[in-house]
Amino acid sequence: MTNRVREILGWYSADNAGVKTNLARILNHGALKGTGKCLILPVDQGFEHGPARSFAVNPPGYDPRYHFELAIEAGCMAIEAGCNAHAAPLGFLETGAAEFAGEIPLILKLNNHDVLYEEKDPAPAVTGSVRDALRLGCVAVGFTIYPGSAHCKGMYEQAREIGEEAKRHGLAFVIWSYPRGGQISKEGETALDVVAYAAQIAAQLGAHIIKVKLPTDHLEQAAAKKVYEAQQVPIKTLAERVRHVVQSAFDGRRIVIFSGGATKEDDNALLEEARAIRDGGGFGSIIGRNSFQRKKADALKLLRTITGIYAGTIA
Amino acid sequence: MTNRVREILGWYSADNAGVKTNLARILNHGALKGTGKCLILPVDQGFEHGPARSFAVNPPGYDPRYHFELAIEAGCMAIEAGCNAHAAPLGFLETGAAEFAGEIPLILKLNNHDVLYEEKDPAPAVTGSVRDALRLGCVAVGFTIYPGSAHCKGMYEQAREIGEEAKRHGLAFVIWSYPRGGQISKEGETALDVVAYAAQIAAQLGAHIIKVKLPTDHLEQAAAKKVYEAQQVPIKTLAERVRHVVQSAFDGRRIVIFSGGATKEDDNALLEEARAIRDGGGFGSIIGRNSFQRKKADALKLLRTITGIYAGTIA
Amino acid sequence: MTNRVREILGWYSADNAGVKTNLARILNHGALKGTGKCLILPVDQGFEHGPARSFAVNPPGYDPRYHFELAIEAGCMAIEAGCNAHAAPLGFLETGAAEFAGEIPLILKLNNHDVLYEEKDPAPAVTGSVRDALRLGCVAVGFTIYPGSAHCKGMYEQAREIGEEAKRHGLAFVIWSYPRGGQISKEGETALDVVAYAAQIAAQLGAHIIKVKLPTDHLEQAAAKKVYEAQQVPIKTLAERVRHVVQSAFDGRRIVIFSGGATKEDDNALLEEARAIRDGGGFGSIIGRNSFQRKKADALKLLRTITGIYAGTIA
Amino acid sequence: MTNRVREILGWYSADNAGVKTNLARILNHGALKGTGKCLILPVDQGFEHGPARSFAVNPPGYDPRYHFELAIEAGCMAIEAGCNAHAAPLGFLETGAAEFAGEIPLILKLNNHDVLYEEKDPAPAVTGSVRDALRLGCVAVGFTIYPGSAHCKGMYEQAREIGEEAKRHGLAFVIWSYPRGGQISKEGETALDVVAYAAQIAAQLGAHIIKVKLPTDHLEQAAAKKVYEAQQVPIKTLAERVRHVVQSAFDGRRIVIFSGGATKEDDNALLEEARAIRDGGGFGSIIGRNSFQRKKADALKLLRTITGIYAGTIA
Amino acid sequence: MTNRVREILGWYSADNAGVKTNLARILNHGALKGTGKCLILPVDQGFEHGPARSFAVNPPGYDPRYHFELAIEAGCMAIEAGCNAHAAPLGFLETGAAEFAGEIPLILKLNNHDVLYEEKDPAPAVTGSVRDALRLGCVAVGFTIYPGSAHCKGMYEQAREIGEEAKRHGLAFVIWSYPRGGQISKEGETALDVVAYAAQIAAQLGAHIIKVKLPTDHLEQAAAKKVYEAQQVPIKTLAERVRHVVQSAFDGRRIVIFSGGATKEDDNALLEEARAIRDGGGFGSIIGRNSFQRKKADALKLLRTITGIYAGTIA
Repeated sequence: MTNRVREILGWYSADNAGVKTNLARILNHGALKGTGKCLILPVDQGFEHGPARSFAVNPPGYDPRYHFELAIEAGCMAIEAGCNAHAAPLGFLETGAAEFAGEIPLILKLNNHDVLYEEKDPAPAVTGSVRDALRLGCVAVGFTIYPGSAHCKGMYEQAREIGEEAKRHGLAFVIWSYPRGGQISKEGETALDVVAYAAQIAAQLGAHIIKVKLPTDHLEQAAAKKVYEAQQVPIKTLAERVRHVVQSAFDGRRIVIFSGGATKEDDNALLEEARAIRDGGGFGSIIGRNSFQRKKADALKLLRTITGIYAGTIA
Repeated sequence: MTNRVREILGWYSADNAGVKTNLARILNHGALKGTGKCLILPVDQGFEHGPARSFAVNPPGYDPRYHFELAIEAGCMAIEAGCNAHAAPLGFLETGAAEFAGEIPLILKLNNHDVLYEEKDPAPAVTGSVRDALRLGCVAVGFTIYPGSAHCKGMYEQAREIGEEAKRHGLAFVIWSYPRGGQISKEGETALDVVAYAAQIAAQLGAHIIKVKLPTDHLEQAAAKKVYEAQQVPIKTLAERVRHVVQSAFDGRRIVIFSGGATKEDDNALLEEARAIRDGGGFGSIIGRNSFQRKKADALKLLRTITGIYAGTIA
Repeated sequence: MTNRVREILGWYSADNAGVKTNLARILNHGALKGTGKCLILPVDQGFEHGPARSFAVNPPGYDPRYHFELAIEAGCMAIEAGCNAHAAPLGFLETGAAEFAGEIPLILKLNNHDVLYEEKDPAPAVTGSVRDALRLGCVAVGFTIYPGSAHCKGMYEQAREIGEEAKRHGLAFVIWSYPRGGQISKEGETALDVVAYAAQIAAQLGAHIIKVKLPTDHLEQAAAKKVYEAQQVPIKTLAERVRHVVQSAFDGRRIVIFSGGATKEDDNALLEEARAIRDGGGFGSIIGRNSFQRKKADALKLLRTITGIYAGTIA
Repeated sequence: MTNRVREILGWYSADNAGVKTNLARILNHGALKGTGKCLILPVDQGFEHGPARSFAVNPPGYDPRYHFELAIEAGCMAIEAGCNAHAAPLGFLETGAAEFAGEIPLILKLNNHDVLYEEKDPAPAVTGSVRDALRLGCVAVGFTIYPGSAHCKGMYEQAREIGEEAKRHGLAFVIWSYPRGGQISKEGETALDVVAYAAQIAAQLGAHIIKVKLPTDHLEQAAAKKVYEAQQVPIKTLAERVRHVVQSAFDGRRIVIFSGGATKEDDNALLEEARAIRDGGGFGSIIGRNSFQRKKADALKLLRTITGIYAGTIA
Repeated sequence: MTNRVREILGWYSADNAGVKTNLARILNHGALKGTGKCLILPVDQGFEHGPARSFAVNPPGYDPRYHFELAIEAGCMAIEAGCNAHAAPLGFLETGAAEFAGEIPLILKLNNHDVLYEEKDPAPAVTGSVRDALRLGCVAVGFTIYPGSAHCKGMYEQAREIGEEAKRHGLAFVIWSYPRGGQISKEGETALDVVAYAAQIAAQLGAHIIKVKLPTDHLEQAAAKKVYEAQQVPIKTLAERVRHVVQSAFDGRRIVIFSGGATKEDDNALLEEARAIRDGGGFGSIIGRNSFQRKKADALKLLRTITGIYAGTIA
């Protein structure tokens, strides 16, 4: 147990030993073990965008077991390999959880949304349970909220219930906090004030780990903009913005990780983002499409570099 | 226990012994036992379309016991006869479950919809329970979802609850995944991208067996179409399309069967469909109206031929 | 126990002994005991239409005990008297259940609707429970569904829950299936195709006893009409239509009884209906307003004649 | 135990001993004990209309304990004093229930409505529970329904649940049945047909005690009006109308009491109402604003006279 | 235990010993212990308004532990220091509850609202539970209602459930009663009649401690205004208005505290408000933004003065 992991666990002092154990399992797994940094492989795009849009470009990905293997092999360092955890919906985890039992910490993503029906104010369906997570040997459950949706109240209340149940059973609780909905502009979904607010809401709802999108320097809400300007909050560089989002999650006393977004042509852009996350005090990345939508060898190479950036072995 | 059945059961490694036993009961029953192929007789049309539209053409079908007998006698091969299972709503199964106890695996269909009230975005009513399935000696429960309906969220959440309860009680979980609703065109309901997506959603919701419609080569959603064209996914023949749908259900690690649809004049069309399902790696058919809406002798003859195609004894 | 009652009980082979016992109590009570025919006195009009509209014409009917007495005395034959059962809402049964304990099988009607508020697509309120039925010594619970209402889904789901709970506790389950709602014309509410469909839905929902209205020869739904004409289903006489409705309830393997409707001036019309029900293989009548909205002596006389028609002692 | 109280308890023969005991506690308390008549002090106006509108005219009423005292002292006869019961929402009863334990039977009013938000079709909020009533030592729970409201179904279903729970725990069940809503005219809220129907609905929902408003001779619903005229139901005097409402509650086999309504300038009007209630066979009054919105001495004087009218000591 | 605290506890005579104990913990903690006055530090603005708008002006406030410290150190008198309690949402309390265990009574705020989605008739989401409050060692739960919102019914019903559960587990129950919604003008939100009504509703819902805004002399509702004028209720000075609000909460038999509102430039205005609360018989203040949105030293100074005003050591 490194001092850094011990320090992070200390932030969760009100949680029971079960939760602390499962947080430790995430922080102490894979290539980044002990560093306090995290790399998580999430694969819910089959549900969220459809199978062909997700996997046709790299067909082995149709098989859920491919992603278990990718998460296990990713980021190979001197000795250790592997992401810190793999997150997916019920069906995917049911397919590999027994075969790869004990090889990679699992996060069961408990709600999902598909695009066969699209709404201005979306609300994902609950598609798994804490009980499912326990029978599949998971270390955590994940839940998506859409702050800004007309249905946010329902999502917060589901999050509350699931979070309480997860903690009572010793599971860690991860919230994906993605602002969306009729009152937020497309640009506003990644506006700094909105992303910081989304991180705060997830933290207040009791999340141990918070996943948000990388923020731009746009400021969406007039009342917030006034404060950012009056208080001269630094927002110019991505690292500054990452720092502000981490600060907005209880002054950094919650693990905040950033999502990779759509597949990027340019690897360098991805690496620059990782550096900004590192420099801004972020805790790591959750990278889905940018890893499983390329050939496995290419994905492993990219993830190895990102791991190196977080571990401090690559500049 | 054949190697093929053993292999298929291996795909469900995270499930408990009860579920595996009931899946084995389906795969090891009737004329196709041990082949890994399935023929299921579903009779919910009395509820879905009304009694006269369903049974007037072959009046013995008004009696639920007729369908038990049909399922028991269907597909007679050298020694064994019978479908792999019979699926029906509560009332139908209550009428025959005791009389035919142990003669045919039963699937209780837990939700249904009627056409005395029709909506643009339909939602079936839950009309049976896992508890009912257990007291009637069923091996599985079936549940219909309509991806693309404005009410899909509610259906997914019901499916989640029922699936969890079924598995906990050792029952297999079958999902009928039929895209419908205001945002999908009539043609789109059987579009390849939509059917493949529907199979993926059912698999992610934790279904052991997935029933979809046979797909056409239409592509409904623009974002998906772009990918099918860019990646040159083969979609020209029905067998290719079946293969893609099976791939979309976790690269073939879930049992995907195809529905027969409305009664067809031409038996050959039906047999061609069966050959395409076989050639595309599909796991079989669920044939309702095309079996019970003809004289019993004709139905048995047709089902025997289809069985032969799946078993490999007929080209 | 007559052979006919034994035969009827055999249709419910999947039910537990408690349900069979209570079905037997209904079939073996009163003037029609052992014949397999039923006469049931339902009195929910105080709730459904208001007290004065229901009882002012025959004021003793304001007192719930009057209806217990009417049901106990009705249809006096050589030795036995009485309807097979009396059905009413909670308040009515609470008033007489102890005083007349053991004198008449009781059916607690679990949902009701009033006309102080009227809707195009009505939905009755649940106003009693299986637990109430048990504490009042009832043999069955009754539940009304309105197929064709925009709220039918909710009613079917309530029916499912209540039916399961009733059966688990050994109570028989009666469904009043009355098509109503914005998509059905007034004439369509008693159209043959619609009434037959309503009987099928009730049967599929697991009802042991089904109450429908007497059908006219109107055919409401185009898709159904086509089939009735193509298959030349006989629909000309009331007896033929009764036969078709009974056939639509699992080929006659469910007890289907017919409601008397609004008070009729002409007794002969009522007797003709009873003869048609008898000739068409119907199981009897549920007669409310036509019995309690006339002087008791007149009601007893009428019911005696109807009983005779069903018992075969009157032509 | 007087014969009259014994007779009334006999109407509730299906209820358990706990309910009978609590009904007896109400009927055998205070100045009217043993007469079968009731005077109940309800104070929910602080919630329903606001504190100043309710209590500013007689400020001691701001203190919940004032109303306990008023109910305990009211209607002093030769020896006994006191109303039969005091009814109020949770907060009011919590304030005095321990201090005045055993001095006055209490009815916890379980739902309330305020006028900071007003709707055409109102629905009160449930603001207390059977469990609360038990821990506060109450003899009964009270529940308001608004027949005629678009939300009546929800209220009836809440009433059903609460009534069942109350009876199971031995508490009496009181329904305030006040027609309101978009389909009823202002005049119709106290129309005789509507009030009688409201009493019938409350009785069918299983109420032991029913509170309605005093009816006018207006007839609201056309279908009812026709019957009142055809059957020549007497409706001219208030006593006749009271008699019809009592008849509509199971021919007088339920306790029906009448509300006093808004504060009246003229005491004589109130006394005339009491005489009409007495002459029409009503069971008493529930008088709120007309007692606590005047000086205590005046209120006690008025209540003493009303008590005398019901007891038969004043003409 | 001072006589004043003993007197206040006497107002809650119907509550169990657990509730009385926790009320005593609040009244007997910190600089105001034993005086019967309260100063509570609430910090939910991170959720309600967003992190930057709440904390950028005084960045240590991003860390939840800052507010624990502020509440512990506030109002230092001769010997004792500290607010009576600290109130915050789940995430904030989870961060400090173990580290500061036993140092400050905690109130878990169980519902919250954010401004990424804003509605005319708002409804907060339930974001914590009584069970959470118990595991975090809290003395009370807090719940916000918006009387006047179209969703008030839902909030009252949630309040009822939570209040009952809290009391059963020995926790005190605090209601924030803030009128808002489409039928209330902006000015009306702090109108005297509206605030007094809001206090009454909270008291009727069973709150032990009630938090309202300081009222203006505006009268919003016509029916209420008529009464205030007719009865000449004194409303001219703030102290008079405070007195009326306290009277409206059961004649002062409930603890009513007043919120500080938005940050004020002028400290004197705040002190004048404290004096008016004191003079009007109010029980204290709940001061959030005016304490944590200034430098800690300044905040402690201000709170010390306010404490002195309530304690009677400062005029």
